[in-house]
Amino acid sequence: MIEVGIVGGSGYGAVELIRLLQHHPEVTIKYIFSHSKADEPVSHTFPHLNHLTYQFVSIDDTDVDCDVVFFATPSNVSKHLAPHFLEQGIKVIDLSGDFRLKDRDLYKQFYGEEAASQTLLDEANYSIAEWSSTNEANLIANPGCFPTATLLGLHPLVEEQLIDLKSIIVDAKTGVSGAGRSLAQHVHYAEMNENLSAYAIGKHKHKPEIEQYLSEIAGQHVGVTFTPHLIPVTRGILATIYVNLNKDMTVEALYNLYQDKYNNADFVRIRNIGEFPKTKEVYGSNYCDIGVYVDETNNQAIIVSVIDNLVKGASGQAIQNLNKLFNLEQMTGLNQLPVYP
Amino acid sequence: MIEVGIVGGSGYGAVELIRLLQHHPEVTIKYIFSHSKADEPVSHTFPHLNHLTYQFVSIDDTDVDCDVVFFATPSNVSKHLAPHFLEQGIKVIDLSGDFRLKDRDLYKQFYGEEAASQTLLDEANYSIAEWSSTNEANLIANPGCFPTATLLGLHPLVEEQLIDLKSIIVDAKTGVSGAGRSLAQHVHYAEMNENLSAYAIGKHKHKPEIEQYLSEIAGQHVGVTFTPHLIPVTRGILATIYVNLNKDMTVEALYNLYQDKYNNADFVRIRNIGEFPKTKEVYGSNYCDIGVYVDETNNQAIIVSVIDNLVKGASGQAIQNLNKLFNLEQMTGLNQLPVYP
Amino acid sequence: MIEVGIVGGSGYGAVELIRLLQHHPEVTIKYIFSHSKADEPVSHTFPHLNHLTYQFVSIDDTDVDCDVVFFATPSNVSKHLAPHFLEQGIKVIDLSGDFRLKDRDLYKQFYGEEAASQTLLDEANYSIAEWSSTNEANLIANPGCFPTATLLGLHPLVEEQLIDLKSIIVDAKTGVSGAGRSLAQHVHYAEMNENLSAYAIGKHKHKPEIEQYLSEIAGQHVGVTFTPHLIPVTRGILATIYVNLNKDMTVEALYNLYQDKYNNADFVRIRNIGEFPKTKEVYGSNYCDIGVYVDETNNQAIIVSVIDNLVKGASGQAIQNLNKLFNLEQMTGLNQLPVYP
Amino acid sequence: MIEVGIVGGSGYGAVELIRLLQHHPEVTIKYIFSHSKADEPVSHTFPHLNHLTYQFVSIDDTDVDCDVVFFATPSNVSKHLAPHFLEQGIKVIDLSGDFRLKDRDLYKQFYGEEAASQTLLDEANYSIAEWSSTNEANLIANPGCFPTATLLGLHPLVEEQLIDLKSIIVDAKTGVSGAGRSLAQHVHYAEMNENLSAYAIGKHKHKPEIEQYLSEIAGQHVGVTFTPHLIPVTRGILATIYVNLNKDMTVEALYNLYQDKYNNADFVRIRNIGEFPKTKEVYGSNYCDIGVYVDETNNQAIIVSVIDNLVKGASGQAIQNLNKLFNLEQMTGLNQLPVYP
Repeated sequence: MIEVGIVGGSGYGAVELIRLLQHHPEVTIKYIFSHSKADEPVSHTFPHLNHLTYQFVSIDDTDVDCDVVFFATPSNVSKHLAPHFLEQGIKVIDLSGDFRLKDRDLYKQFYGEEAASQTLLDEANYSIAEWSSTNEANLIANPGCFPTATLLGLHPLVEEQLIDLKSIIVDAKTGVSGAGRSLAQHVHYAEMNENLSAYAIGKHKHKPEIEQYLSEIAGQHVGVTFTPHLIPVTRGILATIYVNLNKDMTVEALYNLYQDKYNNADFVRIRNIGEFPKTKEVYGSNYCDIGVYVDETNNQAIIVSVIDNLVKGASGQAIQNLNKLFNLEQMTGLNQLPVYP
Repeated sequence: MIEVGIVGGSGYGAVELIRLLQHHPEVTIKYIFSHSKADEPVSHTFPHLNHLTYQFVSIDDTDVDCDVVFFATPSNVSKHLAPHFLEQGIKVIDLSGDFRLKDRDLYKQFYGEEAASQTLLDEANYSIAEWSSTNEANLIANPGCFPTATLLGLHPLVEEQLIDLKSIIVDAKTGVSGAGRSLAQHVHYAEMNENLSAYAIGKHKHKPEIEQYLSEIAGQHVGVTFTPHLIPVTRGILATIYVNLNKDMTVEALYNLYQDKYNNADFVRIRNIGEFPKTKEVYGSNYCDIGVYVDETNNQAIIVSVIDNLVKGASGQAIQNLNKLFNLEQMTGLNQLPVYP
Repeated sequence: MIEVGIVGGSGYGAVELIRLLQHHPEVTIKYIFSHSKADEPVSHTFPHLNHLTYQFVSIDDTDVDCDVVFFATPSNVSKHLAPHFLEQGIKVIDLSGDFRLKDRDLYKQFYGEEAASQTLLDEANYSIAEWSSTNEANLIANPGCFPTATLLGLHPLVEEQLIDLKSIIVDAKTGVSGAGRSLAQHVHYAEMNENLSAYAIGKHKHKPEIEQYLSEIAGQHVGVTFTPHLIPVTRGILATIYVNLNKDMTVEALYNLYQDKYNNADFVRIRNIGEFPKTKEVYGSNYCDIGVYVDETNNQAIIVSVIDNLVKGASGQAIQNLNKLFNLEQMTGLNQLPVYP
Repeated sequence: MIEVGIVGGSGYGAVELIRLLQHHPEVTIKYIFSHSKADEPVSHTFPHLNHLTYQFVSIDDTDVDCDVVFFATPSNVSKHLAPHFLEQGIKVIDLSGDFRLKDRDLYKQFYGEEAASQTLLDEANYSIAEWSSTNEANLIANPGCFPTATLLGLHPLVEEQLIDLKSIIVDAKTGVSGAGRSLAQHVHYAEMNENLSAYAIGKHKHKPEIEQYLSEIAGQHVGVTFTPHLIPVTRGILATIYVNLNKDMTVEALYNLYQDKYNNADFVRIRNIGEFPKTKEVYGSNYCDIGVYVDETNNQAIIVSVIDNLVKGASGQAIQNLNKLFNLEQMTGLNQLPVYP
């Protein structure tokens, strides 16, 4: 069995790892770390896990001995703690933003703090699981939720050089769990319910992450317009992506491209022409569903991509990355169907 | 014009007073007090009031000169500040719990703090507006949200001595705005959404408030079983009230009793036999809608009573009480229709 | 492998059976029946099942050969079709109400139609899986959602003769999926959202079902007051149950009783004294969580019981019943953790 | 008093007209027309209007004598009935799409039916109330909900010729009440709740409406990319509008432009630089709140515009248009503050 530890045990990323790993035949959870809640039963914080006997442990008091550590922490944690594990030969899968940006200045600009060392950043593998190479990596930078939905939607077009790279607009909508478990006025129920807003226009942390990835595929700098919106649902991201095609293309051709590119991707489902996915159709599952549209009058394509932000956008993809690290089938432990309705 | 001040200006009670008073032809808002936000525009905290030029002021720095002060504060505020205004001949309408319970020990038991002085408590008028006498009061204890829905539902039965006073069970459901604007984990959107729970069983502050009022009408001690539940809506209270009738009674007779008792009550609407009100049917308005049912096989009556907790359950009733104090029509400023859908 | 067919394939009960059975190592879905949608891919109706190749088939055109047929149909279907399968030696698990009431007159009164034959009703096993005996049954009447939450909450008290049987009040709250997939004005999103109501007071179909079961345990007729409420969530039932104890009893004693009774029940989790379950804590899972309270001043007990109406209240319990029929561990295929948040 | 009739009395547009007109000092509702519900009390359909004595009347049985008739009907009704009223000198304010498009072919293409006569279309005044001239019109085409939010957001930029007219992308999000009161699977509560989707990509009726208006201002054909999304809230539209500026422009300059253009518009509130409006901040009110952003690195502007789809997007703007017709202050009857929270 692969033994894992989870840092950031009182957050949504951790609790979703626990839920999903419960079905993983090859993984056992050995540690759930939490500083503030050390020695408390996990079920005190999460009564839905009532029947499980997990206990939070302090990372400081533990002589960690396991195969993989997941960081489901806010930014500015893993960059300090990960080296310690890596040195011991423990693989690290980081769900935070600490190892995603290769450019330390960009990190500082968007995260407002010093970046990890360049050595660590160079070592880190940013891994959209469908596109990254199976590898012997030790440090995985698990992609952000918005980037996952967006990049799965854009990769085929950019790779095939089909679009004007200056034209990319991503209008993204996310459920509220993406904001995490920490309290804030704007996600207070009475104010978030029946409410809808754009936020962080032009300055969201996921903008440079999307740009870095696309630039790499394109072989040149790619900028994107990225506008996130907060939607009154718990889970779900829907990214509506607008691009100008650089040549005439039918919707059938676009559809075939996507079908082809994702033919072997267990978790990416391309919708029939004329159909577009809804967030609830992937709720609780690791699927990314994609619908494509072409306005042939002006060569504009619209891609609609949906995921569950806590699964494919975080913990599910992290497990998928673990599966890749250990050469397991990508589906292992992730075959949950969406919860519908 | 009646000039008013509002203490607790950054809470939901205050902001609802502002909304409703905007339509009141006889009232002008002179002060909106907030300690922490003094000198800031109100619209910084509440952008929905963007076009209004109200400014928060500190109560300490203000030589208050107005006719009425509303307290829309947590408990433990008005009992300290109200005397100051009363001495100056300013009437006080208190939306908090500080002056509701006449018994200082009960207050201590349920609120966990020392009660106001007995003199002040004796002076305070607890006023369910439909039932209190028009008066020359100076200090109004505006009823709690649950008690308002419950007592409007129970008053006729208790007054007419139609029920076994030991049999009263109130199963109450409230929207989340009742918990106020302060942040807490259980009203964090991602955890409150799609969730439903009972809370404070046997120890909610509104239990002794309901019991005190019913005991007064009944002329003997009345105890109630009171179980509040938290529902994922912003506004609305629905109280389902179970009582044993002490004699045979048809539903028609019960319906007629309620029609009769509330014949002149502008804000209480009795539903036809066989129909029961929904919270959305009073949303944003000062109405209390009531439906009645009798199980003739066992002489049990069920009363369903709904209000908007922020209007009839707080700020609306406070204005209704102001109207009474100034001998205005009770409808004055309160003729908003429910917002539906 | 146990081969199963599902009748009523385009409803929520069926689609939840599909979701849960996906994890069942011993069951394979052979038929998904739908009259109106015969020969269409299931994913046309349910795009969240996009990657699955199930096809609806007409029951009329199929020479059914399998081990079990689930009926996830409205009432008035299975009573006509079940005999056909039973005759062929196919076991039937009926999620509808057709075989729940033993008294044909009661069925007619509450369902408005003729009941199944008395022979069939006598053959049917009403099975709250925690309490029914493992058996060689051929026809299982899977309990209703409200009865499941209620009866798991009441069984210990009634069995131990601890309560005044005339005092039972069940104030139940359900999410909207309980109303099924058929369209109706009151569950139209714009009218159901932010709304809360009581309904079917005194005449809900689940009232006689609860009464029949309790009467059987008690050995005498038991009547209950049962008031359902509709809550704006998709999934979840919370039953708040009020009973008068017939002797002094501490909350500790009550808690111990429940712990004891459900000691071996994998899916029933008794909450610590002073804690009460929330519906979201069982979301998507087969758990029933129960919290208990005693008001020692008047010997009243309050039991709070929550389930996911589509899982433990329907399809999950149906699979649990299948597991019993085939002597499998009750957990088989049902070990999903609640989806939280 | 201005006497009005309302056609389509059982829909959301009508019921919102009733709510708002209750506060209008110069208008009295004389008729509420409904074919299917003729002679029934309005409160049967809308119990929230319980205390009002309005009765539905059949248009066929009524000798209509009033000043204005509102059509709050689906498309394909007013084009048949309006001429009848116009001939009698009764003004018509049409909330449906029947008179919005001047081009009969476009109407046929997007509405799937024959358009009104060209004579009627020529007579109709499409009136975004902030921009249309006060007039002696007889037939008002009240704009659609999406176009209202979009056009208030775009008008200043197009009028001042500041943008590349080929670059306009409108990513619009709407609450569910916009879909009306008719039942449909996708707005069934259990499927719409916790769900989020794009729909009618490239073929929504409001696309040609937006294009027609912008083309008129621009003096040349303007095409837009318009993608509507359905959001699980009852009320609210948020339009995120992306345009390429055709010259360097700071956000301050853009902000000043909007402030200037809407200086005298009572209902349009421009947010401070760096702030963006939320739908709840206009809930239940006639306000349109707008926030502006400029990415100075690529001369792209983003405009965020929010309205309540049933008020400013339908019935509120209709009353505003009535006020203009009768030379009343635009605020008359429309001074409701947003309901918050």
